[in-house]
Amino acid sequence: MPYTIIGKNVTKVDAREKATGEAIYTGDIHLPGTLYGLLLRSPVAHARIVKIDTRAAEELSGVSAVLTGKDTAHVRIGRFLRDRTPLASGKVRYIGEPVAAVAAVDKPTATKALGLIKITYEELPAVFDPEEALQPGAPVIHEELASYFDVAPSKRYGNVRNESRYAWGDLEAAMAEADLVYEGTYCTQAIHPAYLEPRHALAVADAHGKVTIWSSTKSPFTFRGLVAQCLGVSISKVRMIAPTIGGDFGGKGTPTIEPICGMLAQKTGGRPVRLESTREEELAYGFVRHPARIRLKTAMRKDGVLLAVQGELIYDTGAYNDAIMGLTFSSANLVGPYKCKAAEVVGRTVYTNNLPAGHVRAPGAPQTLFAIESQMDIMARKLRLDPWEVRRINAVEDGSTTGMGHGTIRNSGLKACLRKAHEVAFRSLTKDGPYQGIGMACSQWEVFPFEFTTPSRALVMVNEDGSVTLHSGITEQGGGQYTTMAQIVAEEMGLSIDDIGLVVADTDATPYEGGTGASATTQRAGNSVRFAAQDAREQLLALASERLEAGTSDLVLENKRVYVKGAPHKGVPVAELLRSAIGLTGGPIIGSSVEGQKALLAAKKEAHGIVDAPSYGAQAVKVQVDPETGDVRILSYIAAQDSGFAINPKNVEGQVEGGIVFGIGYALTEEIRQDGGKGLNSTLVDYRLPTATDLPDINVTLVEQPSTFGPYGAKGVGESGTTPVAAALANAIEDAIGVRITDLPITPQKVLRALKEKVL
Amino acid sequence: MPYTIIGKNVTKVDAREKATGEAIYTGDIHLPGTLYGLLLRSPVAHARIVKIDTRAAEELSGVSAVLTGKDTAHVRIGRFLRDRTPLASGKVRYIGEPVAAVAAVDKPTATKALGLIKITYEELPAVFDPEEALQPGAPVIHEELASYFDVAPSKRYGNVRNESRYAWGDLEAAMAEADLVYEGTYCTQAIHPAYLEPRHALAVADAHGKVTIWSSTKSPFTFRGLVAQCLGVSISKVRMIAPTIGGDFGGKGTPTIEPICGMLAQKTGGRPVRLESTREEELAYGFVRHPARIRLKTAMRKDGVLLAVQGELIYDTGAYNDAIMGLTFSSANLVGPYKCKAAEVVGRTVYTNNLPAGHVRAPGAPQTLFAIESQMDIMARKLRLDPWEVRRINAVEDGSTTGMGHGTIRNSGLKACLRKAHEVAFRSLTKDGPYQGIGMACSQWEVFPFEFTTPSRALVMVNEDGSVTLHSGITEQGGGQYTTMAQIVAEEMGLSIDDIGLVVADTDATPYEGGTGASATTQRAGNSVRFAAQDAREQLLALASERLEAGTSDLVLENKRVYVKGAPHKGVPVAELLRSAIGLTGGPIIGSSVEGQKALLAAKKEAHGIVDAPSYGAQAVKVQVDPETGDVRILSYIAAQDSGFAINPKNVEGQVEGGIVFGIGYALTEEIRQDGGKGLNSTLVDYRLPTATDLPDINVTLVEQPSTFGPYGAKGVGESGTTPVAAALANAIEDAIGVRITDLPITPQKVLRALKEKVL
Repeated sequence: MPYTIIGKNVTKVDAREKATGEAIYTGDIHLPGTLYGLLLRSPVAHARIVKIDTRAAEELSGVSAVLTGKDTAHVRIGRFLRDRTPLASGKVRYIGEPVAAVAAVDKPTATKALGLIKITYEELPAVFDPEEALQPGAPVIHEELASYFDVAPSKRYGNVRNESRYAWGDLEAAMAEADLVYEGTYCTQAIHPAYLEPRHALAVADAHGKVTIWSSTKSPFTFRGLVAQCLGVSISKVRMIAPTIGGDFGGKGTPTIEPICGMLAQKTGGRPVRLESTREEELAYGFVRHPARIRLKTAMRKDGVLLAVQGELIYDTGAYNDAIMGLTFSSANLVGPYKCKAAEVVGRTVYTNNLPAGHVRAPGAPQTLFAIESQMDIMARKLRLDPWEVRRINAVEDGSTTGMGHGTIRNSGLKACLRKAHEVAFRSLTKDGPYQGIGMACSQWEVFPFEFTTPSRALVMVNEDGSVTLHSGITEQGGGQYTTMAQIVAEEMGLSIDDIGLVVADTDATPYEGGTGASATTQRAGNSVRFAAQDAREQLLALASERLEAGTSDLVLENKRVYVKGAPHKGVPVAELLRSAIGLTGGPIIGSSVEGQKALLAAKKEAHGIVDAPSYGAQAVKVQVDPETGDVRILSYIAAQDSGFAINPKNVEGQVEGGIVFGIGYALTEEIRQDGGKGLNSTLVDYRLPTATDLPDINVTLVEQPSTFGPYGAKGVGESGTTPVAAALANAIEDAIGVRITDLPITPQKVLRALKEKVL
Repeated sequence: MPYTIIGKNVTKVDAREKATGEAIYTGDIHLPGTLYGLLLRSPVAHARIVKIDTRAAEELSGVSAVLTGKDTAHVRIGRFLRDRTPLASGKVRYIGEPVAAVAAVDKPTATKALGLIKITYEELPAVFDPEEALQPGAPVIHEELASYFDVAPSKRYGNVRNESRYAWGDLEAAMAEADLVYEGTYCTQAIHPAYLEPRHALAVADAHGKVTIWSSTKSPFTFRGLVAQCLGVSISKVRMIAPTIGGDFGGKGTPTIEPICGMLAQKTGGRPVRLESTREEELAYGFVRHPARIRLKTAMRKDGVLLAVQGELIYDTGAYNDAIMGLTFSSANLVGPYKCKAAEVVGRTVYTNNLPAGHVRAPGAPQTLFAIESQMDIMARKLRLDPWEVRRINAVEDGSTTGMGHGTIRNSGLKACLRKAHEVAFRSLTKDGPYQGIGMACSQWEVFPFEFTTPSRALVMVNEDGSVTLHSGITEQGGGQYTTMAQIVAEEMGLSIDDIGLVVADTDATPYEGGTGASATTQRAGNSVRFAAQDAREQLLALASERLEAGTSDLVLENKRVYVKGAPHKGVPVAELLRSAIGLTGGPIIGSSVEGQKALLAAKKEAHGIVDAPSYGAQAVKVQVDPETGDVRILSYIAAQDSGFAINPKNVEGQVEGGIVFGIGYALTEEIRQDGGKGLNSTLVDYRLPTATDLPDINVTLVEQPSTFGPYGAKGVGESGTTPVAAALANAIEDAIGVRITDLPITPQKVLRALKEKVL
């Protein structure tokens, strides 16, 4: 490998501060005179707001600002589609919806002020079951939507927020060809991303009316635009800074407290305002992963060849929807990473008066893969085929069509992953006692060509001593993004990691960046960062070329020096080149991503319809089930993941491992329980995350099938690893005790009930 | 005028925060756990440091860090030439030189720690008179310099720090042609810039060892490089931020406490350190304006034509020299803004054990103009000529050679200023009582082509809503720089000032900028900011051109819309263009100054030897002298100043007015008095600045003779206005009471003594 820094396990640049506690989170930032903000939340699931009287609260000594829905009615917020206002306006649609906000000198005063706000509600019939919400005559939750969104009237029936359909091939013929047609129904629950740092915002307005907000958002630039709209100011008057983020898992791209915090700060005459969620608010009031009900009918030939997939999905998005785009694409996952002759899928996202749903790691995919990967196993079992072999013969490969039929797959590493995982499983996963079972499943996350929708710019500034500073708007939620970017710059500029300065996650200090997420950061920002570094390098080499009388292709940039290839003594320090640049170009060198990005976009347009960086993998797990208690213990877990080129293999393994742990919680223990729209488990005692003692050793093997357009061939791996876990575990449980659980989470109670039903 | 925002008196963008007290100065920034730093200073003027024992201080409870010269000996600091170490190393050279530094939990503990540091000095003979310092056998103050600097041995005799000579024309012949040859000697004193905010630094090291320093510096990028050297880290590991600057007047480009504060912070394990100068430290320990002794011989024909200038300057730079470049160029000012046939000037900067000297508004020029503009008046008086007329016939014009003979003047506004000032003076300055006098003098400050030595970059980011954010490393010391830059961006982008975001004075948030100063900011940074805005505009127009099917030259960018000239309805919002740009170029638009700067540099190279933006003016003053007390009262002051094109006329007038007030203090009351190297006046009671009651109405008229290369024709005016004030006052005093004072400041005592000598 010709690389010196990428492809290596460089220690995370933020490892030390996180390990020692030196990392600065939003809650660690203290500004003198900071006011305390609190939200008043709706006690009812569906009601018209008849009247809000805030006079007593406003008059309370120590209260600086009070906001209600009328202050925020002018702007609709949300991620992608904007179906809510920062504070409820006219109606409340779920228990816990913010209705008013106050900022006061301290928490007791703010609490007292909330108590003084009098709200008259006129309760409306509520609906909590998405299928009921689809019935004619069901209470309508968003009457106002038509005026805000460009949704075809045909798609607005009942409470359907969005309907996506795709169908290709001759379904009837394909079904008719089958030796086995199987229909299953799968249910998945709401979970919370359960980042350890609850949402937290701190805002202050300066003398110019410019508002700065610190918040653990992963999308500072999108938040900036939204906050500017809320504040009624130019974007140039808002600054968002994302200090250390204490976990995200998809959730912190959803704006909640930030616009409200900014608006409070705008009203306090310059005093800062802190607005923090408690753990209880996080767990009791959303946003959650969409619960799903999936009906899936698949047809297979007796040799295991998958012929057709027909399915119907209902996603309960609760009162609001913050992840429509992900879900639309993800219904494609219902076909799994498999070839077949025909498919027909209808997915509906439905409003109810439950907690609102948003982005949680791999939106839509853990639900759909739980269905298809359970069903593949069931069918293999019925046809007495090896589940590995059934996957292998159906697995997509280069030239296959994507599940939604929208593109052609290139650079698929799925078969290689299956081969690798099978090899490791064969060696390390063997049953050595009763009630043990082994299950497997494939993972899938197609990284879409986000360059066309989500911008990313980078600038590489060469400092006077030859060190460089990268300006990129990316954030770091633990995936190693900062380290990856530093590695790319170091590689391109011939520097050590220590010479790379990172300026990140501050809208006033970096060019625009769409936000870390969608497993796309390494590809999208990685490319822009690489292009910016290459541009800086080219500029340096051009300066050196004249000086050293050699073509730029004969020059090496290394350790802050440029020299002629093969003649390291014939060189010139970068510092000296920069001094000469002042007179030639007016100042130091700034590398920009723009030209590189233009070329990449042109190449991608050329390759229209090609999905060049699919993120596939294969996983297997060995479990021990206790037939007396229904308890499932995971004994061993293995995964093979295609990461394209792994810029930092340890980070990539960490992402896959983290995804698996996330999936284990989803599969076995996590569930936001609701009753009549009310969240029932609002502490981490009641909401059971996997802990270290629940976890097996996880063995991750990387398969490197480079992508065409990713930097150095890298693919995205942040979400793929979590997608098949629930299915792999359900498959292992059936292998262990012969019962099939199709309803997540797989609690001991459900296992016991299934065992009992089986005996009956 | 075709402009809508430039050329207008736009209110300063920072006016409100400064008026209300909301502006944040370094001292307003509070970080939890901040330690208090203090400096231990030398009690002797010249000594070898035999031993420093810091053990007791280090062991004192509450002390986190102790530094001495051995910790800082590896790096030499200063502005331009670096002749000192942050803490004295081996020797001390003036009373008050920092020798050690501590950081402790609070000021009492830090004070106690200083008391515990034991230093053994071996005193050396000291020299306080620059002429004595030039004598053979005088104590040598900087034995070590030869090894650090590339100074020709011939220039290193005695304590001469620097010698600049220039000679052109046939001096002997020109002198021989004269009707009057006059030789005068002029003495000027040390003054302090007397910014109201003493130097203040706050530093903190993060978990990566990156050090952030807030400081009221006007050159954050130069300080950054210096601090990195001190800390022994890459520049990418240092961030300098300049919050609101409480005055500068040249002084805050000199690094003093900042590197020490950074080094202390590096040693405290992450705790912040504050290091602030007191008013007493500021006034008692420098850096001051160089005191000068000037011998000036001039030759004139009886019709007033100046024939020859011969002069010798001695600048006392004290123990260290922080302004060598300015002084070298400024000896050219000894010829004044006049044509003549021959000139010969020798200037020497000499080390003594006095307080170190550095940059104070217009380094070198107030001294030299005091000499030449006094002498022009004396000669006019002797030849019974009108002083205005003598200036007029000698004034440089386009095609004249500069005083140093190094270039050809273009775009001179001097004659126009003389005409204008004379007109106003004729109307408004008439003597209406005894002991009144009127004096005049010309101002001069040549703005050198700093683009070739001092880099400036700018980036203009177009936000999603069409507002823009300017990233520029300039600082604002009160001259209106921020407002000027915002006006330029608004003008080029068709926006209102309110839509311009300013990101400034933070090395992590902006591209490189050499620092605000040298009267060059409007020209240098103004150009780079304009180029960046133009680049952004061109990119927007190119996007619109395709959409609107019109050539870019037919398009207008205004109010966040692009439309076809003459057809405002045929347009497209910038926000929409930007959305389309994502798919075409990868993201929002970033305008860069680089291409514009390259073109400007090429044009300037072409115009080699042309001084295209000389900053001339003419001033006149009316005084009332009290022959009983010697008191001088200024009754009226007028000035005509060539500003090229005035981007913000009120700001320009403010700069000229401020310069005049600064000059009045220099002329009449301000003096850092020293005895044996010890500063004697260390409070603002003893160091007498002009107050509001000392000041007359000041009438400033702008003359706009555009420069070729300045933005829109703008010239620099920050320093020119202060240069002739002392001479104008000395001339007025002679006009009032018939005595000539050649020794600044013109105190009542000196006036009385001169009156007494005249009577005798």
